Amino acid sequence: MSAIGQDPVNVDPDHYKVEFENDRVRVLRISYGPREISVMHGHPASLAVFLTDQQVKFTYPDGKTEEVRAEAGQTLAFSEMEHLPENLSDKPLELILVELK
Amino acid sequence: MSAIGQDPVNVDPDHYKVEFENDRVRVLRISYGPREISVMHGHPASLAVFLTDQQVKFTYPDGKTEEVRAEAGQTLAFSEMEHLPENLSDKPLELILVELK
Repeated sequence: MSAIGQDPVNVDPDHYKVEFENDRVRVLRISYGPREISVMHGHPASLAVFLTDQQVKFTYPDGKTEEVRAEAGQTLAFSEMEHLPENLSDKPLELILVELK
Repeated sequence: MSAIGQDPVNVDPDHYKVEFENDRVRVLRISYGPREISVMHGHPASLAVFLTDQQVKFTYPDGKTEEVRAEAGQTLAFSEMEHLPENLSDKPLELILVELK
């Protein structure tokens, strides 16, 4: 379903689980332990709803990095992207990602 | 945007606020105080992410009712619907509703 990159549910199933799927959306529940890191993967355009505070570093395929901070309860819309996330916090993080098909 | 019923953002702006909108989705932040009730309104197909525990009564246009219970962090997919929600709890409730265009 991801237009670019590998599907995180396949390449990082410990952190990415399918919560719900129909013909319009795929809903992922994403959970990282403290300081945990993923592998490079892709998402289609999506809407994140953060269930915990977040302090995450995204590394992109070109090597550039970006830090994303958010508080529990916030939402954030993402364009289609490929990235490698890392939890920079000493606390676990959890979010719901609504991927748009 | 709702295919049926009145837009909750217009008829109940105290409880329904637009958090984000693009050509694919409209994201509502929905907040009810204890025991508060809305007015009849409609939503397109949508995905709810509950930020607090919920105990809500939906009354439908035909007069039938349904109780919806959920815990903070759960998600629930809804088909297009018209309903009148009431918070049955003595606590405030909050959720994010991702409406699909």
